[in-house]
Formats: sequence, C-alpha cells, structure tokens
Amino acid sequence: MILTSAITEKLRLIEALIRTPTYTAVGYTHGRIVYVSTVEGATDLWSLDLKTNEKIKLSEGGIHSLAPVRSKSPLVVYTYDVSKGRELQQVFVNHVEGGKEFRIEKMGPRRVLGMGFDGETIALGAATEKAMELWRLTPSGEAEKLYETHALLFVTDYNDGRIVGQGIFKGDPRAFEIFMYDIKKAEFKVYTPKEGSVNKNPKVRGDLVLFTTTAFGDEKLLIYNIAKDELEEPKFTHDDYKKYKFTEYVDYDWTDDGRIWFIGKREGRTKVFIDGKEVPMPEGFSSSLVVVENKAYITHSTLTSPPRVYEVDLRTSERRVILGADLPPEVASRLGKRYFIKYRSPDGLEIPTYVVESQAAPKPGPTIVYVHGGPWAEVADYWSVLLASLVVSGYHVVAPNFRGSTGYGEEFRRLDIGDPGGGDLQDVVAAAKWAKEQGLASKVAIMGYSYGGFMTFLATVKAPDVWDAGVAGAGITDWEEMYKLSDAFFRQFMDILFDNKRELWKDRSAINFVENLKVPICIVHPQNDTRTPLRPVLRYVMKLLELGKTFELHVVPDVGHAIRRIDDVLKIVMPAVIFLDRYLK
Amino acid sequence: MILTSAITEKLRLIEALIRTPTYTAVGYTHGRIVYVSTVEGATDLWSLDLKTNEKIKLSEGGIHSLAPVRSKSPLVVYTYDVSKGRELQQVFVNHVEGGKEFRIEKMGPRRVLGMGFDGETIALGAATEKAMELWRLTPSGEAEKLYETHALLFVTDYNDGRIVGQGIFKGDPRAFEIFMYDIKKAEFKVYTPKEGSVNKNPKVRGDLVLFTTTAFGDEKLLIYNIAKDELEEPKFTHDDYKKYKFTEYVDYDWTDDGRIWFIGKREGRTKVFIDGKEVPMPEGFSSSLVVVENKAYITHSTLTSPPRVYEVDLRTSERRVILGADLPPEVASRLGKRYFIKYRSPDGLEIPTYVVESQAAPKPGPTIVYVHGGPWAEVADYWSVLLASLVVSGYHVVAPNFRGSTGYGEEFRRLDIGDPGGGDLQDVVAAAKWAKEQGLASKVAIMGYSYGGFMTFLATVKAPDVWDAGVAGAGITDWEEMYKLSDAFFRQFMDILFDNKRELWKDRSAINFVENLKVPICIVHPQNDTRTPLRPVLRYVMKLLELGKTFELHVVPDVGHAIRRIDDVLKIVMPAVIFLDRYLK
Repeated sequence: MILTSAITEKLRLIEALIRTPTYTAVGYTHGRIVYVSTVEGATDLWSLDLKTNEKIKLSEGGIHSLAPVRSKSPLVVYTYDVSKGRELQQVFVNHVEGGKEFRIEKMGPRRVLGMGFDGETIALGAATEKAMELWRLTPSGEAEKLYETHALLFVTDYNDGRIVGQGIFKGDPRAFEIFMYDIKKAEFKVYTPKEGSVNKNPKVRGDLVLFTTTAFGDEKLLIYNIAKDELEEPKFTHDDYKKYKFTEYVDYDWTDDGRIWFIGKREGRTKVFIDGKEVPMPEGFSSSLVVVENKAYITHSTLTSPPRVYEVDLRTSERRVILGADLPPEVASRLGKRYFIKYRSPDGLEIPTYVVESQAAPKPGPTIVYVHGGPWAEVADYWSVLLASLVVSGYHVVAPNFRGSTGYGEEFRRLDIGDPGGGDLQDVVAAAKWAKEQGLASKVAIMGYSYGGFMTFLATVKAPDVWDAGVAGAGITDWEEMYKLSDAFFRQFMDILFDNKRELWKDRSAINFVENLKVPICIVHPQNDTRTPLRPVLRYVMKLLELGKTFELHVVPDVGHAIRRIDDVLKIVMPAVIFLDRYLK
Repeated sequence: MILTSAITEKLRLIEALIRTPTYTAVGYTHGRIVYVSTVEGATDLWSLDLKTNEKIKLSEGGIHSLAPVRSKSPLVVYTYDVSKGRELQQVFVNHVEGGKEFRIEKMGPRRVLGMGFDGETIALGAATEKAMELWRLTPSGEAEKLYETHALLFVTDYNDGRIVGQGIFKGDPRAFEIFMYDIKKAEFKVYTPKEGSVNKNPKVRGDLVLFTTTAFGDEKLLIYNIAKDELEEPKFTHDDYKKYKFTEYVDYDWTDDGRIWFIGKREGRTKVFIDGKEVPMPEGFSSSLVVVENKAYITHSTLTSPPRVYEVDLRTSERRVILGADLPPEVASRLGKRYFIKYRSPDGLEIPTYVVESQAAPKPGPTIVYVHGGPWAEVADYWSVLLASLVVSGYHVVAPNFRGSTGYGEEFRRLDIGDPGGGDLQDVVAAAKWAKEQGLASKVAIMGYSYGGFMTFLATVKAPDVWDAGVAGAGITDWEEMYKLSDAFFRQFMDILFDNKRELWKDRSAINFVENLKVPICIVHPQNDTRTPLRPVLRYVMKLLELGKTFELHVVPDVGHAIRRIDDVLKIVMPAVIFLDRYLK
C-alpha cells in the first residue's frame, strides 16, 4: 500500500518558516529602539526599552510605510493602507511609548511616495490619478499641499526646512536628479552634478545634502553644499572603508552628533562603517543601522537566516542579538548551501546570481529559477521568505540578477531600459540552462512576483521549451491594459522602463502569445493590486481557458501588491507549493 | 506574545480525513469481489480474492464510470475520462485478476450516460454536442451505434438482448419513462404505466423489467413483463420488508439464482432485504449490495464514518468488515452528534435536514449551511468528505434537503421544477435562521458544490443579510451563458429543470445581482468543468473586481466537475477551509 506523501506536512514546514518573526530596527528615540516585526502576524511597529527590555506595540494590522524616527521627538510617524490593498494611505502618529494612534485626516488617502519627519512636522510625496504632489502635515492634524508636478518623484528626507528626494525631472529615463524644496521660500529646485547621471537617496542637514551619484563613474557618496553650490567629499576620521570597492550604498546618514555612517554593498553583501570605521558583522546583508551613543543597532540577514537586530558595542566590537528568532531546526536543516556565481547570457553578458541548494532535494533535483521583482532590485544575500519557502519545499533555487538589476553598477542597471522582457528575459532563460549544465537541476520551473511574475508569463510563452512549469505572482500579461488602469506614478514608471517605446508593449505582453504556452502555469494574484492589476490577468485566464491550457488561478482577497500579513503571505505561497509539488516532481 | 493559530494544523487534519481510504463493493466474479477504493489516491477499481485476501489493482489514476460486473465473465468494464476532466470518456476492459487494460477505441470519446454489460458485450448511452446515442461495444474492440435521439436518456442495464434505461421521452419534465431497446429487432420502445409518472432504474432479465414507479402513488418496486405487456408485483419468500414504509429504493436487482434484493430508504437511512428478508446492518446508509451464495457484501457509511464493506453471513446474520479504514482518532474525535430534524420554510413546507455538530466548535458556534448538488439528490446519513471536512475544521453543519431533493417522495422532488433558485432558495435561507434560533449557530456561511455552488452564488446576492460568508464550488452564475456552453445532455437538463421557462434564467442568475453582495465569497472552480463551465464564473469575477467586492478565486487545473483524485479534492477543500478560517471566526 503506497500512501501519497502528505502535502500538508510540507505546508506545515512552510508555515513554520513564514511565521518565524523578523525584526528590523528603524530608529531610536527617548530610550527606545523603534523596530518593525512580524511577531504578531503582520509587519507592525514596536518599541523596545533599552533599559527594561519592555516591548510596546505601536501599530496594529500592518503598516504600509514609515518616516524616519527623530531622537528629539517621542512621536513615530507611519502610514496604513486604508483601501484594502489599493495602496491609498493615510498618515498616523503614535507616541514611542504607545497609546492611542492619531490619524491625520486632512490629507485624503493617497499613494505615498516617501516621507520625512524633522521632529516637528511631516513631509511627504504622494501620487493621485493625475499628478505627483508634495505635502506637509503636522502631528496635530493640519495638512497643506506644497507643490504639484507631473515628474516622477520620491521624498527621502526632510530637515531644517528642506524636503529632499529624487526624481526624473529632465525627461531622461536613465537619469535621476535630486530635488530640494525650500519650505520658507516655497521654492522647488532640481540639482544634478552632471546631466544623465543617477543621483539618489539624498539626506539633508542644514545646507548639506548627502547623496549618491554616478556623475563621476561608479556610484559615489558625495555632499552637495546648497549655500555654496559646491560638491564636497564626505570626511571620515577613519579609513577602514578605503580597502573596499563598493558598487552601491544601501543606506547612509549623519548620526545625531554629526558623524557620517554608511552601508556599502558589493555582490549582494555589505559592510558597515561609522565615521569611516568598519563595524564588524557576519557575512551577509546589513540593511539598517541605528547609532545610539557608543552602540550601533544593526539589522542583519542572509538568504538562509531571517532579519534580526544586533547590538554592537562600538568600543569593543562585541555584538549580541537583542531582537531575533531562530528558524525551527526542522526548517533550518532543509536550507542548504548558498553561494554567488556568474554565468554568461547568450550575448556574453555575465549574470551575477545567487544559488541556494535544498537539503530536501537530490542533485540534480527539481530547481526553480526565481525572478526578482522591480526590475530595479536584486536578490542579494538577504532574507526572502518566498525564496526560502521554495528551498524548504525541496527545490534548489537559482536567482539571477538579470540585466537591469541593481547592485552591479549603473551601467548594468540601465540595460533593461527600453528593452524590458528582451535581454533580461534571455538572461533568465540562460539561468535554466546553466542550472542543468551544472548538474544542479533535473526539472526547472520559473517563478516570480511582480516584475518576476511578468517575466514568468513572458518566459513561458517566449521560451516555452525551457520550463517544466511556471508560477506567476502579481504578474503582468498586458502592458497596454495595465497602462490604462494605472495612476500617474505607474504610468511614469512604464514610460521610463520602456523609454517611451510604446510600440514594444505588444511584443512584451504574454497575452499576445498565449497559444505558445506548453507547460502548466500557476497564477497567484492579489485582488486589489493597483501596481499590477488583476483585470488583464483575468483576461489572460479567459484565453488560457479557451485554448485548453493547463492553469491554476488563485486570487487572494482584500490585499494589494504589498503583502503585510503573514496569513496573506501563506495564501500566496501555499498554492504555489501545492502546484509545484504536483507539476515539478 | 500571541501566536496566530497554525492554519496548517487544521489542514493536516483535513488531509488525514480526506486520505482515509473509502471502499465500495461493486460486484463479484471468479472468486473475487470487485470494489472501488481511494486507497492509492484516486477512485480506482480493485479486486479482492475471497480465499487468499489478495488484492489486485485493475485501473490507474481514477475511473469515471463502471458497468455492472457479471459473474459469468472475468472481465470488468469501465471508463476513463480522456479529456482532462471534460467528461469525454472511452471504455476500457480488464481481467478481474489484473493485467493489461484494453481500450476500445472505435467509439470516440463521449459523455457516457450509463453502461450495461451482459457478460459478453457492452451497451451504453452517450451524449455528443448534438444528440443522445445508444452504442454496443465488444470487449475485443468492435463498436456500433444502435440508435440516436434528442431525448434525455440514461442506460441502467443490459441483459438477454435488451438494453434498458430511463429518459424523458414524452416532453413532460416531471416524468420519466422506461425505454427498452431490442437489439435483434433494432427496436426502441418507451414504456410507462401511467402518463406523467416517474419510472426509474430498470433492470432486465429475459422478459422481465424490475423498476420503480410512482404511477400508483409513492415510489413502488414493480415488474413489467414485456412478453405479456403486464405489470406484476415482485414476489418474496419473506415479508420482513412489510413493516417498513420506504420513500425510495436505493438499488435492487436479481441475484444470480433469481431472488430479488433491494435497499429501501426513508429519511436518509436504509434497510437491506434479500428475497424479502432483512439483512441487519448498523444505522446509516447501505449503498450497494453484492450477493455471493450465502454471503452478502454490503457497502455502508454514515455522515461520520467513511464507506466500508461488510461481509454478512446470511444464515447467521454475523457481519465483519472485510474492506475498510477507520478515521484517525484525532479526526474522528472532532466529529460530533449527527441527527435528523425538520424545520418549516416560510411557506410552511417542512424541510428534512441532517445536522452534524463539530466537537471543535462552541455552541453557539460558527455554522455552515451546506447545500447539496443535483438538485435531484440529497444529504442522507452517508459519507460526504466535503461535509465531514467542514465539521473537522470546527464548523457545525446544517444540510437541508430543500424542495427538489430526492429521498422524500416524488411530489417533494418535483417542487423545484420550473422554479430553481426560487422556493428552494427560501428553504436554504430558512436553514440559517433555524440554526440561529436553535442556539447552534453564531455566524453562518453558505457553502455548496455544483447546484450547491449555484445556490451559494444566488443566496449571497438575493438574501445578502443572512450570511457572513459564502463558498461556491463549481457553481453557476449565469444560466444563459451556461446553456450556450453546454452539450445536448445539459441543455436538456436545463430545459427540464426550468420547465422550459427560459424567461426565468435572468432572475435566477447571480450575475444580474452582483451589486447586492455584502459578504466575502470564496470561489473554487475546476478548470475543465463541462457541466458548470468556468467562463461565466470568470465573468462574475470580473464584475466582483469592478465593484470592489471581497472575493477569493481558486481555479483547479486539469480537472472537471467530477473529482477523482485525492490531491484534487484537497485542492478544492483546502482553500475553502483557509477562507472560512479567516472570515467565519
């Protein structure tokens, strides 16, 4: 008597993985570390008293975004989605010691594009159906629209009377300029050290703007002095950082006492520096840093360990985990080797890639080419609950940083502009071939969420013989219909990605090639997704049905593109795992 | 620290329940009981050697239908769906001792409407897009179409040169007539003892046709003598059966030595008689009987115990289970009291109903009104894996036999003809009210598959305040589009159900009332369903999306209306359980 293996045993391990709480430190004020954790089932804000270890929950049900925490204010500023996932948000304020949240209602629900908090008032970018806006709000509930533009913009900081951020203001989709809005003068200024360069993530103190730029080659951290209209190199007491060559800067800012800290990244792993001195951390990825006098609170994860917060004594370099949870041993033991490789795409381009082997799969064994979202993002050596779920389910995972990914220089990032679903698709196809040639993969499925879902749809119709199955989460099947359904921000995004070549939309939309599909496809889509809307995917499904293709569809209710509740993550992951269990055996 | 309860723990119990094998005896030949079991993950045919207890598997991957087994032939005749669930079948033959199956290819794939086997050749009814047909096949592979008609028909037996069955031949949707096809004369004859009566399930031996009829009041078992053109009462040696009053006859036939056996039913429970003598069985439902000399092999189940096969010694009445599996204790212990009740619908009609309480729910607690399919079917005291899954998940279940259900007399059954989704919907709504008044239900969801899915769609838009959630499996949202997508058989079915009142279609289609929906709805639908097609359901989903209703959609790939694999049952049940866990708390 042969019993079919229990799928719910696999699901149980996945649930145990997904429910393992993550912890990310986001700031410090009034004796408390502010952090985000999934410990009660949604990505909520908490604070930890550094003296008593008391933890207080500040938000409920999952926040959407967060303003920087300022040590001079006991207030924490964040948003909730108030539209069942449609990403229309309102701003809330709570005291770091908890209490009743206050909702700022005078600004109606909007898609928020970055927030700043100077300790007294709040600044933010927002998109409506028609335009991008700058707003200033007070914690007591006042709200004022400061500025409106049709350019794509994103607020990254607000201090000393200036709102700063980045945007595409000169019409070049490959470039980003810095903007500075002077509240007193009601003056909006755009700055770039060099036309066509990428300038990002500005932080502002007084007249100084700390930002990264590609104006002089590789990404570089520089200071723009507004008063002097001059560029300066940041000054550091120590020179530990000089021995590394970073391709990107994950984050940086001034400490309260005026020292500059930064996290540098190369090939998906990071190093942390305060005033030029390295803060030793384990191999992997440090994603945030909070400095409190002689202590640093650093959030760290890898592809096989979830985010936890280390407290590092900056005098002794001793570190300990102050917020963190281990994976259950039966889960952790299924996560195998993780490593970084490069393979060549057909046109010779090297594709930097992370691989995680499953201890629950033979070699060669069933393998998944995991396609990240963005596309301007990457799979680095940090935690991805989706990727880890696949490994625990018994699949080796190959996660290519296809052309257009971040993390490998600006030239590499720009390679998909004007060609999404073109060269990058070839890179992803080559990942499957590489995995087979290496003796890693027996069968290969393609899977991704968002842009990764788009690539999954397209790869299964444009390279139908390469895959054994596909799982498309929150994907794109029809750019034309998506454009019609998008707000100003996402229309801008599309025009930038395609470099205004709208004639390419048709060729890069799987809906025009459905008849080529040969393998079973599992589609998982949030009901209220406003980035990658459901409607064109339902039309795709109608076509699959007409053509008698094998497909599975799961629409997840009351959620949007960004998933904040563990239960909803489960609703995305579990159907995929059940599907793969059947079609990738 | 509060941990959200693990949904996969609930799923694990459901999987354990669904994987508990079921056993149904279907015949005997050459020293072997032929039975159907899910023991290897699909509803396959097996045979059991009564001397050695050796079990042999005869089919693989799940059969679709089965001809009667004849003791004079060692062959077993059955069909597989060869269309990924679209219910186009081909006939296969295997030896009762196993070996290589033989496929009869000369009759192309068709929707099979009943099969007979006289021990030498096979007779069957089949529907194409256009018509209903009668066929005769030989185990060696020959196939001949005998007859074609536009009337709805169903073959129930074939012996001694005659194919018999039932159908609607006189245009009265409330009546069923018997047909007899004489192969030698190539003559098709329709018989009814009385115009307008319901005559069903004929079995034929020589000139005698054993069938049930409502020609003389309640359902009665009679014999029609073809040669004499006369009706006769069946004769029994014993008169145990006389003390019971049955509303319906589940099954009956002659034994090989010429005795008549039957299973009588009243209020969802049965009694078994051979030659008029009662074969004592536990309370519940005996669904099939195989007589082998002095032994009877009886399949028995209840709402809380899965089907098993008893061997009963007809001389001593001793019985023992020869094929069966117990539910795991942790599953069985969650199944509470089961009982039969009646409540009154608003128009005063009494609605016979089964209730199963959950030991994993408080009282009052979350409750599901489970709406059976058909509509000419019932929830009796027999095993329903869907219903049991809900009870194990922690819901009390109320399963009304709304007007139109079988089991309560022909008058009751006919009450939905010309009014589906009318009076029967009121009965279902009244079930929710009854459950609350009784102190059984706190919150109430409605759930059903097939006609039950139709009722769920309709109930949630026509009585939107009664429910807290709905789960519609393989349901109907739009009769008009469904008619267009149906084959001849299902078009006939619809015209009969609606009594040709096509003007009612609009009012009985949820798609025309979507805006009324107030509660979350979970939709589960097989991809290749040809009875209740997916397309109108996808159009319904488009409307839900436009109107911003909360919904969940799960399309199950490569399967049709009838589910034969345990893994696919899981794919239907698990999303429902996860959904209810969130919305019926």
